[in-house]
Amino acid sequence: MADYERILITGAAGSLGAQLREGLADFAPRLRHADRADMGVAAANEELVVCDLADRQAAFACIDGCDAIVHFAGNPREHPFDELLRDGLPAAYNIWEGARRHGVKRIVHASSIHAVGFCEVEEVPDTRVPHRPDTFYGLGKCFVEDLAALYWDKWGLETVCLRIGSCSPEPADRRMLWSWLSAADLVRLTEAALTAPRVGFSVIYGTSDNAQAAVSNAFATHIGFVPRDSADGHAPAVLELTPRPDPHARATRVIGGGFAAAGHPDDDRR
Amino acid sequence: MADYERILITGAAGSLGAQLREGLADFAPRLRHADRADMGVAAANEELVVCDLADRQAAFACIDGCDAIVHFAGNPREHPFDELLRDGLPAAYNIWEGARRHGVKRIVHASSIHAVGFCEVEEVPDTRVPHRPDTFYGLGKCFVEDLAALYWDKWGLETVCLRIGSCSPEPADRRMLWSWLSAADLVRLTEAALTAPRVGFSVIYGTSDNAQAAVSNAFATHIGFVPRDSADGHAPAVLELTPRPDPHARATRVIGGGFAAAGHPDDDRR
Amino acid sequence: MADYERILITGAAGSLGAQLREGLADFAPRLRHADRADMGVAAANEELVVCDLADRQAAFACIDGCDAIVHFAGNPREHPFDELLRDGLPAAYNIWEGARRHGVKRIVHASSIHAVGFCEVEEVPDTRVPHRPDTFYGLGKCFVEDLAALYWDKWGLETVCLRIGSCSPEPADRRMLWSWLSAADLVRLTEAALTAPRVGFSVIYGTSDNAQAAVSNAFATHIGFVPRDSADGHAPAVLELTPRPDPHARATRVIGGGFAAAGHPDDDRR
Amino acid sequence: MADYERILITGAAGSLGAQLREGLADFAPRLRHADRADMGVAAANEELVVCDLADRQAAFACIDGCDAIVHFAGNPREHPFDELLRDGLPAAYNIWEGARRHGVKRIVHASSIHAVGFCEVEEVPDTRVPHRPDTFYGLGKCFVEDLAALYWDKWGLETVCLRIGSCSPEPADRRMLWSWLSAADLVRLTEAALTAPRVGFSVIYGTSDNAQAAVSNAFATHIGFVPRDSADGHAPAVLELTPRPDPHARATRVIGGGFAAAGHPDDDRR
Amino acid sequence: MADYERILITGAAGSLGAQLREGLADFAPRLRHADRADMGVAAANEELVVCDLADRQAAFACIDGCDAIVHFAGNPREHPFDELLRDGLPAAYNIWEGARRHGVKRIVHASSIHAVGFCEVEEVPDTRVPHRPDTFYGLGKCFVEDLAALYWDKWGLETVCLRIGSCSPEPADRRMLWSWLSAADLVRLTEAALTAPRVGFSVIYGTSDNAQAAVSNAFATHIGFVPRDSADGHAPAVLELTPRPDPHARATRVIGGGFAAAGHPDDDRR
Amino acid sequence: MADYERILITGAAGSLGAQLREGLADFAPRLRHADRADMGVAAANEELVVCDLADRQAAFACIDGCDAIVHFAGNPREHPFDELLRDGLPAAYNIWEGARRHGVKRIVHASSIHAVGFCEVEEVPDTRVPHRPDTFYGLGKCFVEDLAALYWDKWGLETVCLRIGSCSPEPADRRMLWSWLSAADLVRLTEAALTAPRVGFSVIYGTSDNAQAAVSNAFATHIGFVPRDSADGHAPAVLELTPRPDPHARATRVIGGGFAAAGHPDDDRR
Repeated sequence: MADYERILITGAAGSLGAQLREGLADFAPRLRHADRADMGVAAANEELVVCDLADRQAAFACIDGCDAIVHFAGNPREHPFDELLRDGLPAAYNIWEGARRHGVKRIVHASSIHAVGFCEVEEVPDTRVPHRPDTFYGLGKCFVEDLAALYWDKWGLETVCLRIGSCSPEPADRRMLWSWLSAADLVRLTEAALTAPRVGFSVIYGTSDNAQAAVSNAFATHIGFVPRDSADGHAPAVLELTPRPDPHARATRVIGGGFAAAGHPDDDRR
Repeated sequence: MADYERILITGAAGSLGAQLREGLADFAPRLRHADRADMGVAAANEELVVCDLADRQAAFACIDGCDAIVHFAGNPREHPFDELLRDGLPAAYNIWEGARRHGVKRIVHASSIHAVGFCEVEEVPDTRVPHRPDTFYGLGKCFVEDLAALYWDKWGLETVCLRIGSCSPEPADRRMLWSWLSAADLVRLTEAALTAPRVGFSVIYGTSDNAQAAVSNAFATHIGFVPRDSADGHAPAVLELTPRPDPHARATRVIGGGFAAAGHPDDDRR
Repeated sequence: MADYERILITGAAGSLGAQLREGLADFAPRLRHADRADMGVAAANEELVVCDLADRQAAFACIDGCDAIVHFAGNPREHPFDELLRDGLPAAYNIWEGARRHGVKRIVHASSIHAVGFCEVEEVPDTRVPHRPDTFYGLGKCFVEDLAALYWDKWGLETVCLRIGSCSPEPADRRMLWSWLSAADLVRLTEAALTAPRVGFSVIYGTSDNAQAAVSNAFATHIGFVPRDSADGHAPAVLELTPRPDPHARATRVIGGGFAAAGHPDDDRR
Repeated sequence: MADYERILITGAAGSLGAQLREGLADFAPRLRHADRADMGVAAANEELVVCDLADRQAAFACIDGCDAIVHFAGNPREHPFDELLRDGLPAAYNIWEGARRHGVKRIVHASSIHAVGFCEVEEVPDTRVPHRPDTFYGLGKCFVEDLAALYWDKWGLETVCLRIGSCSPEPADRRMLWSWLSAADLVRLTEAALTAPRVGFSVIYGTSDNAQAAVSNAFATHIGFVPRDSADGHAPAVLELTPRPDPHARATRVIGGGFAAAGHPDDDRR
Repeated sequence: MADYERILITGAAGSLGAQLREGLADFAPRLRHADRADMGVAAANEELVVCDLADRQAAFACIDGCDAIVHFAGNPREHPFDELLRDGLPAAYNIWEGARRHGVKRIVHASSIHAVGFCEVEEVPDTRVPHRPDTFYGLGKCFVEDLAALYWDKWGLETVCLRIGSCSPEPADRRMLWSWLSAADLVRLTEAALTAPRVGFSVIYGTSDNAQAAVSNAFATHIGFVPRDSADGHAPAVLELTPRPDPHARATRVIGGGFAAAGHPDDDRR
Repeated sequence: MADYERILITGAAGSLGAQLREGLADFAPRLRHADRADMGVAAANEELVVCDLADRQAAFACIDGCDAIVHFAGNPREHPFDELLRDGLPAAYNIWEGARRHGVKRIVHASSIHAVGFCEVEEVPDTRVPHRPDTFYGLGKCFVEDLAALYWDKWGLETVCLRIGSCSPEPADRRMLWSWLSAADLVRLTEAALTAPRVGFSVIYGTSDNAQAAVSNAFATHIGFVPRDSADGHAPAVLELTPRPDPHARATRVIGGGFAAAGHPDDDRR
């Protein structure tokens, strides 16, 4: 299964990145991991690069020699617009532009359900609905999805955007009963996105095989993602420990949950 | 799993109501059952109320103190318009208006596939198609669905309308090979409708996990209903015992089956 | 242009009914007008019948001998459910069932935009969206639409439901800049609905040729309604005289306007 | 399970036909197999007819006495237009017209994914997309589908068109990881198409339960086809043995694969 | 306006072809007209070729030297399948294959509303609905549309298929009040189809600016066809002279009208 | 017509901004114009502010005291990502955030057809298709649209995004025959967007009443934009002076035209 010679995984020191580092350890002959933080000791087939992807030259150097990128770097919480402008957006440009210059074949990107977080739960949005970000965080994900579409349409660089739900050890609240993605399913999803014969520019939701589903992958079946875990076994405990939510609260009404309900990050800081 | 303190189940002496009475016995600390007919002996956590829900004061009294209603009362067969006007419609108003006045959180309603019974089988209608009732019975279900939508949109009272297929002990004819809903799946469906974190006004079809499916829950996955039974094991016997249907017969052509083919109830009585 | 021998117009003493009485005066050899109120003096080709259409025998007698019905009777404002149950619903049944028994060819019905009044303005609903009534008044219109669908699907009686916007002498507020239907356009709409070669069960919105349009007749073009009047000439005066609406107010947000914002009629009476 | 007295299977000497001959051996009391080639020895309930279905009288004779037809005859590879005109099209007419004259109840036809082969993979086409043939072979399938629609709409003869993917012993390349249909699933699909109570004119894709899916049966669930085999077990070997495809190559971009990429058959012969 | 050097018009002796011959007389420097029948005297910029387009060599010779084709040849009435097989289908192949070989830029084809004639009037089909032919005539049109799609997708040859309604001197019955296309509008439609900067494979309905519309060009606006005539002025006379149609008759129910209601051409001949 | 007390128009020294400055001169009691370049002499009701909107404090100061903003500032041509990051994105944030802080009621934004420039012409995209930018310029427009959606969904600030086609004095090439927007129609469009009673977050295409239309405002009719000019009168001259385009060229295939065909701005500079 050596479709790629060397895969770059960004954000490898982060929570999700670490899961991918472990889960994809045997997926390619060489794996290069990049992060601003220390990533520990390199395994035999690993290269560890500490760098800031918002630094163009550093990013290009990091990409050189890789034929696929799994781009998971980025602040996973709401943050001020200025941070987005300083970190997330330039890093994204550097990744796609670097990939174009260095002949990378495919990028798999950690987008987020928060790119469409203001869709209502009963709407059950598919992967073709217009963007509806619920935070500056989500707005950044929208931007990267559109950037990736441009690089596909114009320069033929393939991307799969994974609109990840809630990737935590266990479903911790009632919303996660539909939005939860297990770590193992995250690995399966990433592998499928790297393996599917043709993806062009594709978007797919990342949730496990949960009984409740507030998003639809009806138009993403060509990726071949089949989740094997489920939040359902956790449902009794979650229902026991958490109160019945108010259906009129914004956090319950839309798929973005608490992100949609949160205030402006600058207001919060005041 | 005590999201609700006291659930009112109407029609509890009926065939489906009895299944729910048994299936939901442990679902809430208190269960109040209402019917015009005798309901036997009350269990420890049960209250039995014999009343006519078309009587406004009786209905309101019945609702008082409950925080959820499972409304299954009603004549399950075709009946004259005058009966609908006298029984089904006023009872429905009394339930939703009583729920509004008494602060009920959510209603789960036994709607029916006959609300869209004139959709053709090959159309595979989803939960967003316009109403297409096949009987006065189905027309009454349409009315209650629209009433429930009004109470949600205007007064924020949540409802899930279960468009139940054929809830009988076993699939008895070829149409039931797709429309059958087992008693256990009916209970699962009702529990899911009571438990889903946010339903607003939602519609969902109630059929088991049958190989054939002439209706689609593609837009109802947020409810979290996963059927576990199937008509498929009964298929050999049903195919053996029943003749091949005429594909041009109205009862075969549309999803309402025999209901769609039946005459006007007043003509029948003449 | 004598497709029909005798047309029954109900509600002829009402505001819209009077416009139709005048506008359709030459449309058929005989016109029968029915209302609970006095309708003045009959013209040469008119028959005036004072009766209560909720009285079945009176309604049937009224229909006998007619081959088309223009059903405009009914309280055009929000009213308690009990009035709906006592008047609007039985009258509707009597009209369609009487039409079935007496071989009437087609019914044109004054439905209302309030049958889908809770659709949002930006949604621009077409004639295939599910019902979303904004009042008991609108709920009654939903019921009649569904009843008419049943009579077409089951007994082959054709109906066109006109979802009329705001039929007043002049557009009086900003919402009417899109919802206004002139009296002359109402007559054109009714004539088109009576004349189109095949309507089956059809729904069409009734608004004039206004620059703003918050509803879509994209699926109703087979009726052949071409409005010739427009609210646009009134726009400067309306904009001058009325304040800029609050976009977050329910009356601005949804197409039902003030009806959607109004309270429960029983609350109002308290 | 004797819905049909005698089923005609055409193309029984072909690869797929032979699988059906074996798989459907007990499905009806009598089975008549037709092919231009020798079909070996007849079993007890079999009749073997060697004939050219493009010969009208031979075809009609072959159909006489049958109440269902499984039409799988035809060149399964790209071929010149003139061969289509000489063989495939007249044979199809003879089958449907013969079926009409002899009162056949239902036809199950081996159509092909190549009838819509120019749909892109990310489009995940359903069974309601317009035709988009990728070859003269696919064009012939389009023609037969339209012919079958005409015979249903006009003369009430039912057909299910099976848009078969890749029916080979094993998935041999990466495209087959989504397009593969096992022989056993082909039999299940054909049985479902013969058994479903009402099909009118229906189209369904024929692929096994593969993780990747580039076509959607969302509107064909009324047929009741549940695949039980999967290409997934073959994925590791296929990925190992075949190179990563070029996503910009036509054969990768559209669902028709190599058929879409192939040249004009007359050019090939030059 | 000389986008093309020499345009071939086939069927120029036919009723529609003659209108195009006149209407397009100045559209290109050279016009070549082809028909099996005599076409009279050639104008200064005309070449007249009497030939049978089902004869491949004759067809290729006819195409040689042209850079656009307006293909209107063909029997405009229902005809037996064998005639389709002998004339219409081979002629179509010869036109598109000849165009491919001789570098023709674009073909405008007289398809027909009868390619989707079994769509119901209330459905108001757009240009993306699946084929639903109402005759062998309509089936032939479906075939040519699919053939044209193949030549675009595979060999980059552009086609616009004009689904012409009723192109007669005047609307003669009630159906033509929506389906009528004036001769002048036919010319406008053909010019638009030849002029639009990019058509790929496009389908467009050909009807005049009639108040009633049972088909929708919502997805064909890129062609730039703006009809200027209308059946509406003829409506009073048509309504006066023709009886009210039976809405349940097939000829009224579906857009194909009398074609859909006609029997099998072989039955007719018996 | 004084819905707003003071409107801020940004980019007033630009080509489109100047047209709006003139066209909206009487639309509000006070107009404030902002640009980085000199704007000449202020009229009686004008305030002219020279400032850089990417400077947050300057932008906020500029917004203070205004109740509506017409945001047209920005480089209207393709430009490097770094310029987008430095100018367009921060300016947009400053406008919407400033509007939130200063209680602005509504923003009308000059988005562009290039936000969806990679949609194909035959697709005729409506206002609900996902983004498909054709340049970094278009990517910036996508970002602002998503930002505006966030500010509506989260903070209730209304925006209309005008996806302007080609706003030049005259249509200069064949693509502009559909994409052209006259200056007067641009003013009408902006007025409609400021006047419509409720817009929430809305998108509308800005093209004149041209015969050809490659985009659809079917879901934007609530804005009330009725173009009165047309490119059609210029068609003969344009067709005469410009060659027939290659339908396979990217600039012809997609609605973005030359923008979609242009290379990477950094490559261009090399």
